[in-house]
Amino acid sequence: MSTSVSANHEAPAAAGDAQAGDFESWVAQRVARARELLDRHCGAGLSAGSPLGEAMHYAAALGGKRMRPLLVWASGECLGADGAALDAAACAVELVHAYSLVHDDLPCMDNDVLRRGMPTVHVRYGEAMALLAGDALQTRAFEVLTSDPALPERLQARLCGLLAAAVGAGGMAGGQALDLQATGRRLDLQALRDMHSRKTGALLRASVLMGVACAGEIDPRLAQQCEAALLDYARDIGLAFQVVDDVLDASADSATLGKTAGKDAEQGKATFVALLGVEAARAQARQLLEQALQALRRLPEPARQRSARLAELARRVVARSH
Amino acid sequence: MSTSVSANHEAPAAAGDAQAGDFESWVAQRVARARELLDRHCGAGLSAGSPLGEAMHYAAALGGKRMRPLLVWASGECLGADGAALDAAACAVELVHAYSLVHDDLPCMDNDVLRRGMPTVHVRYGEAMALLAGDALQTRAFEVLTSDPALPERLQARLCGLLAAAVGAGGMAGGQALDLQATGRRLDLQALRDMHSRKTGALLRASVLMGVACAGEIDPRLAQQCEAALLDYARDIGLAFQVVDDVLDASADSATLGKTAGKDAEQGKATFVALLGVEAARAQARQLLEQALQALRRLPEPARQRSARLAELARRVVARSH
Repeated sequence: MSTSVSANHEAPAAAGDAQAGDFESWVAQRVARARELLDRHCGAGLSAGSPLGEAMHYAAALGGKRMRPLLVWASGECLGADGAALDAAACAVELVHAYSLVHDDLPCMDNDVLRRGMPTVHVRYGEAMALLAGDALQTRAFEVLTSDPALPERLQARLCGLLAAAVGAGGMAGGQALDLQATGRRLDLQALRDMHSRKTGALLRASVLMGVACAGEIDPRLAQQCEAALLDYARDIGLAFQVVDDVLDASADSATLGKTAGKDAEQGKATFVALLGVEAARAQARQLLEQALQALRRLPEPARQRSARLAELARRVVARSH
Repeated sequence: MSTSVSANHEAPAAAGDAQAGDFESWVAQRVARARELLDRHCGAGLSAGSPLGEAMHYAAALGGKRMRPLLVWASGECLGADGAALDAAACAVELVHAYSLVHDDLPCMDNDVLRRGMPTVHVRYGEAMALLAGDALQTRAFEVLTSDPALPERLQARLCGLLAAAVGAGGMAGGQALDLQATGRRLDLQALRDMHSRKTGALLRASVLMGVACAGEIDPRLAQQCEAALLDYARDIGLAFQVVDDVLDASADSATLGKTAGKDAEQGKATFVALLGVEAARAQARQLLEQALQALRRLPEPARQRSARLAELARRVVARSH
């Protein structure tokens, strides 16, 4: 891993990234920035002590790995993107992710009481408030994308369009509906991949594409040249992410996961582990990682030499324990 | 009422409105167009026979009066706005309205089984699918606003921003949260007005503002001159709409309403009728109508002479029986 990081040190620094340290300190810095942005945008415009604002803030604060914002920043910075636009995009994808978790956890969906070791939003604030908090978190994502006058309006529109296409019936929500229909039924590998490509993959791909869109304001030609390879990268790590999720659900305990383990098998859900077994699923995740890294090698310069963080993020997806 | 309509006949025809007939035929035409737009945008991008697409389509088709799209068209056309942009805005506000009804009807919220005389979405498709359908209807609104290349990107961004600000925690969802908190508690008139100003008023105001924004692409000066008066108009009819809703809930039967009547009193909800009595509430609605009509009289020409449909819509809000 250290070679990738040092490769990055020889590259011209990406915009807003002059004192690039190693990968871990970059992650820590960006995770802190995500938290700061979510704090700023969750609860704003609400009267103090509003339960809706509190529930939104609680839901957003529950977020752990901030994988989607990290992908926005890493892909955008790899192509030299601008700070304010990337911040808005990073915040928006995490707000959408937070909304999807709140609604996923509801009794009528997964009925989960624990998320990252904490009571889920409906356990803490009641079902009705959790429903509204999820709804309002989704809306807030579009507010964040359209409320910063520093962002050119054409970029605001493009980011809203990319996010909406990824989140709705053709993307995340559609994948969740397929997941609902699949419970207790035998899906084949292709159907399972398709479902996850929408359920979790669409937002991960959108994170990368939104980073690229921000960069397109600065260097449209480079952004265009890089889009296909970065989309392949995002597709591979999106699927790897899900395969690893299934492996962890089948093999880790609830304390490590911070959520209820073993629920997939219990609910008769189609998973990569159920179809392939744990070992073959792990091998699949490693293969997807290799493909994602190959996609980064296809990037034209100077993006390729700046892609170390994207490579590290891919490795982190596969190596994670929760 | 017929004088207002004939006044409009003497006015220059608004864009896309060359064969303007009387008010009723304009309404019928626009309601049909709303239906057509919703048909086009609900279910698109989904595989045929997808339960999510069906639930979204069912929810959108349940819509009755199409008050919000009518407000978009009437305010935009009053200022000479363009067809494609108004269509997108009209469709988007109705998609958001449909989403809010689906989620409002859920068991953890109002637990309503009947909407416009039909089974509610969760009764028909199950709670989980209704949750997702509401989520995806919200997203679809932003997709519609950003997917038509005929709309200038700056207008797309502006429409997304207006819609998001009206729908989220500072607007509709925030009002719904206040409503939740208010159940069983005694609100005073000001608190009740504030709650409704967000819960239903924000989206009605956004409908008018989105119409004005579309017109701003064609005649920015006129749009700017008209915005304040039209916002007052929207504020007054928004509140009138809610007062009339409360009167109808207290005085009409379920068959006329197409939903369960008398639920407000049963649930101990704060209403204008509970605070003022039926007669004073009716008088309040009439007064708000008068204020709304006065706001239209403040419009500069040529908007003022084209405002007959906005006046008729205001009268319809107060005179409706369901």
